[in-house]
Amino acid sequence: MSKLIYLDNAATTKTAPEVLDAMLPYFSEFYGNPSSIYDFAQKSKEAVTKGRQQIADVLNAKKEEIYFTAGGSEADNWALKATFEAYKSKGNHIITTKIEHHAILHTCEYLEKERGAKITYLDVDENGIVRLDELEKAITPETILISVMFANNEIGSIQPIKEIGRIAREHGILFHTDAVQAFCQVPIDVDEYNIDMLSSSGHKINGPKGIGFLYIRKGVKIKSFVHGGAQERKRRAGTENVPGIVGYGAAAERAMKNMKERTEKEIELRDYLINRLTTEIPYSRLNGDRVKRLPNNVNVSFQFIEGESMLLMLDQNGICGSSGSACTSGSLDPSHVLLAIGLPHEIAHGSLRLTLSEETTKEDLEFTVDKLKEIVQYLRSMSPLYEDFMKNQK
Amino acid sequence: MSKLIYLDNAATTKTAPEVLDAMLPYFSEFYGNPSSIYDFAQKSKEAVTKGRQQIADVLNAKKEEIYFTAGGSEADNWALKATFEAYKSKGNHIITTKIEHHAILHTCEYLEKERGAKITYLDVDENGIVRLDELEKAITPETILISVMFANNEIGSIQPIKEIGRIAREHGILFHTDAVQAFCQVPIDVDEYNIDMLSSSGHKINGPKGIGFLYIRKGVKIKSFVHGGAQERKRRAGTENVPGIVGYGAAAERAMKNMKERTEKEIELRDYLINRLTTEIPYSRLNGDRVKRLPNNVNVSFQFIEGESMLLMLDQNGICGSSGSACTSGSLDPSHVLLAIGLPHEIAHGSLRLTLSEETTKEDLEFTVDKLKEIVQYLRSMSPLYEDFMKNQK
Ligand SMILES: Cc1ncc(COP(=O)(O)O)c(C=O)c1O
Ligand SMILES: Cc1ncc(COP(=O)(O)O)c(C=O)c1O
Repeated sequence: MSKLIYLDNAATTKTAPEVLDAMLPYFSEFYGNPSSIYDFAQKSKEAVTKGRQQIADVLNAKKEEIYFTAGGSEADNWALKATFEAYKSKGNHIITTKIEHHAILHTCEYLEKERGAKITYLDVDENGIVRLDELEKAITPETILISVMFANNEIGSIQPIKEIGRIAREHGILFHTDAVQAFCQVPIDVDEYNIDMLSSSGHKINGPKGIGFLYIRKGVKIKSFVHGGAQERKRRAGTENVPGIVGYGAAAERAMKNMKERTEKEIELRDYLINRLTTEIPYSRLNGDRVKRLPNNVNVSFQFIEGESMLLMLDQNGICGSSGSACTSGSLDPSHVLLAIGLPHEIAHGSLRLTLSEETTKEDLEFTVDKLKEIVQYLRSMSPLYEDFMKNQK
Repeated sequence: MSKLIYLDNAATTKTAPEVLDAMLPYFSEFYGNPSSIYDFAQKSKEAVTKGRQQIADVLNAKKEEIYFTAGGSEADNWALKATFEAYKSKGNHIITTKIEHHAILHTCEYLEKERGAKITYLDVDENGIVRLDELEKAITPETILISVMFANNEIGSIQPIKEIGRIAREHGILFHTDAVQAFCQVPIDVDEYNIDMLSSSGHKINGPKGIGFLYIRKGVKIKSFVHGGAQERKRRAGTENVPGIVGYGAAAERAMKNMKERTEKEIELRDYLINRLTTEIPYSRLNGDRVKRLPNNVNVSFQFIEGESMLLMLDQNGICGSSGSACTSGSLDPSHVLLAIGLPHEIAHGSLRLTLSEETTKEDLEFTVDKLKEIVQYLRSMSPLYEDFMKNQK
């Protein structure tokens, strides 16, 4: 088989070899429980503290504001559920968007169904961007939380987080952002942006799977989501995942060191890919904002095509892509994100997400475009819809 | 410094080198997201399936009944909170014990305070064992769940799980057990014992930190605790921790392979240590049941001693022990477990837990006993309480 061309970095990334190297001593050598008091365990404790500081530095946060979790989903659940519990005497209304990840949307559904929350799901414009005037209009005296993702995982659109933070602050409403896709991809300053809570996940930034964090601004009075031991300043129970935290911290530091060069290179390749796909393949369109877009995200719809077949044929050529978020692949529903930006079902179905990494080369993309042109042509040649359409064109 | 003698295996264990070896390919080589559909990700998916089977085999469960979590704490939270939510229309009463881990106790407090649950905390006898007649008496028509730990993390006492399971089944009540300390240490058969839910944590069995599972018997209708993506058959959202699952599975398989020899050896060493400590050091007593006891647990109280000072002096000699559970070290409250078995505060304070591993040698324990005798004598020589006591003896 040909070389693997991995273009699904929004689903998960390779743990960088130097990140793994940093983790290794904490499995079988310095394996102490950070909560223990003997000297041997201090190594684990120090490693956790260092990881926390490395993460905090990315956000211009204090290390005491970083709470490690099992991943982005737990962080999202925690932010929403615990905010609702802590502030429900103040009000029961939460504002979010129609294009959030399921970790937010399904948590909101749970809060609505089981806990008496009222949720407003904001529409987005055709580029997948929240409209600030609609956000302002949605605010009621009952609103306790605004949760808007920093950048979308499917179409890469980056929200006006600073403006949303300002609006939240002006109204005295807490602001949470799911930054799982944005962390270490775009600059984030929790103070400048008035972010009160922020979720992230290690395996999206060349760190390990199974570790994430919730940033909680000092003063935000949410309690635990996982109850038990006194870890994470009594806010998140469970023996610390020391190697995971070490790897996450190392990955964050590494990603920040080369952020400018890396994202500049990615943007160049991203735009090259977008341009070639949308100009050389007819009846295709870019999904998501052209400019306010994650450096590594390409999402294109091809009319008259089933996304699944396209993915399988790409796979036969060693190219890994996706049609939506990894967590919903296997489901036949079209992406809620693509529907929210106004795509009809049939076009949403023919969408392809390709997400680059720092290792992606121009040759990879050239090969991918070439193959994709063949694949689209082939699949269209078998599509009765396409045939009808072409007949009508004549 | 002298060689490290690690006797805190109930707090956490070394990741076995062969476990780490099994994990390694899943960081930087086969790093695909198991939910993705391309061939490359099948390796990750298969690895998760294999790990699930390895775990299920330990319990005589089906692999579809194993749901991976971030650890024991999350599993405990999930079992209790989701059972309460799913069955609260049937009743709001949960029965547990006074000696559970904080992951259970603090979750129960949360359910009482925030969600309207009624909790009965059963007393235990002086050996730390639940009395079955008291359990039966506590059952009301409102009782929806019995949660009793398999073995206690501080004093090692093993509960009559089979009888508890039988009682629960007879009354049509769900039965959850926190088996974090028992898993792979004592034989467990979820069918024979009528266990409906069971929690466990990877880092207690020479697996990695940051991974655990909840066994949920087919037919138990609890929903998600972490909402979001469709992972774990839609019951636990979040990208799977593939290396963690691989390591957990490998650790379980490894632990089961040598279970008989390992625990026989541990029991021998455990009893050696118990005998020497309680016979050679005056005013000492064993905590927990002499026989119904984890193979690797020793917990002894020394009168007129501060546990903390004892631990620090042991540490100076390269010996790692603990005075309670790792998650509460740092707290000055005496252990709730020791109080529950009837120890007065002052004696509870002078307790030491030493938990062995398969690597523990008789020489380690000889050295530990020798040192401990010196330490206890030294600390007592400085204790005004001891001085008074000895005066009164004359
Ligand atoms: C009995 C018991 N339950 C639950 C836990 C929590 O496990 P974890 O810290 O891995 O979440 C522990 C570990 O300290 C334990 O000993
Ligand atoms: C925007 C967003 N939020 C949350 C998550 C969930 O993260 P994890 O799967 O690591 O829990 C993801 C990952 O798919 C994501 O892209």
